[in-house]
Amino acid sequence: MATRPRPYHHGNLRDALLDAAERLLERKGASALALRAIARDAHVTHAAAYHHFDDREALLRALAARGYDRFAAALATAGERAPPGRGFLEVGVAYVRFAAAHPALFRLMFGAEVARGRGGDDALGAASDRALNVLLDGVRASAPGLDEASVRRRAAAAWAVVHGLSGLLLDGQLAALGLGSGDPERLAREILSGGAALETAPPGAG
Amino acid sequence: MATRPRPYHHGNLRDALLDAAERLLERKGASALALRAIARDAHVTHAAAYHHFDDREALLRALAARGYDRFAAALATAGERAPPGRGFLEVGVAYVRFAAAHPALFRLMFGAEVARGRGGDDALGAASDRALNVLLDGVRASAPGLDEASVRRRAAAAWAVVHGLSGLLLDGQLAALGLGSGDPERLAREILSGGAALETAPPGAG
Repeated sequence: MATRPRPYHHGNLRDALLDAAERLLERKGASALALRAIARDAHVTHAAAYHHFDDREALLRALAARGYDRFAAALATAGERAPPGRGFLEVGVAYVRFAAAHPALFRLMFGAEVARGRGGDDALGAASDRALNVLLDGVRASAPGLDEASVRRRAAAAWAVVHGLSGLLLDGQLAALGLGSGDPERLAREILSGGAALETAPPGAG
Repeated sequence: MATRPRPYHHGNLRDALLDAAERLLERKGASALALRAIARDAHVTHAAAYHHFDDREALLRALAARGYDRFAAALATAGERAPPGRGFLEVGVAYVRFAAAHPALFRLMFGAEVARGRGGDDALGAASDRALNVLLDGVRASAPGLDEASVRRRAAAAWAVVHGLSGLLLDGQLAALGLGSGDPERLAREILSGGAALETAPPGAG
């Protein structure tokens, strides 16, 4: 019966606009995200779109916040489902998997534009903190008793590995090492479990 | 005496154009890099600029190649000057230092646009290979006898750490961990020497 899109209720227009924005983002990049184009894609007037988002930046932040919500859930689930002792690795694999599955959303979430607006946006701050806390909890669980400054340094290092791997994959850099052409998840698991040691280490210690 | 810029010889116009392009890049970003604007900034006609670069993409690749030349030299020097056993760490610190000192050039060098054009550009390919080889040689020196596939996986992991740390720093992400506001080099040294282990490790093992 329902072949035409149903009219939006007040409660789901915001989500419909964010869905339209995410489609545009992944298809055409962040520069294509004008409120007018999103409203058109969601079949509403742009006045209706402005009712939900003050401007393009507010929409980008809302999109990033929704991305962080899903991202935090994916990381937490990966950690919970992992075999004992492998939680931290599986969280890292889930990080790269998310980046590979939603490249434009991932770039938006971690881009400088959204980072600058995070301080004034409670929903965005809370969502990105949830993702960060999965990482911090993972460090604390893997090294109980570590002082908080060391936890943060170690979390930064672990974050850097998975964030860098995601970026190198998305930007097609790993081809230079003869890697990066296969399944991103398998590659991430191989590289992350192969030892992320940057310091001098004896063979096999990684 | 020489208060006016000297006329360019055939031999240095290319460098002068690249200097102008790099100034524009760091000031206004890659999107501002039109050949016409660069020619204006270098005080030459745009016909002269087209004599050296077929199009904007060729100029971006040449700029990236020059960046990779300096980058490879900086990494190699850092490795050579490092105290015994710390070469790999110092190469990593030099990586982040370069990114922090030349953020727009760094983004250009590792961006998808330049990566796509690398295959058909011998100068760019050779320059980026030199940088990559510093990394690969570092892995081989730190773990003699390692098979080549493991060398490449380990190099990818080490690359990911320093690349990710650079990106998180440039995009203002580390503030979420209470890090990132101080000197980038000191921060890189702290984080990289604090253990980049992603796998479960006992306290203090990093």
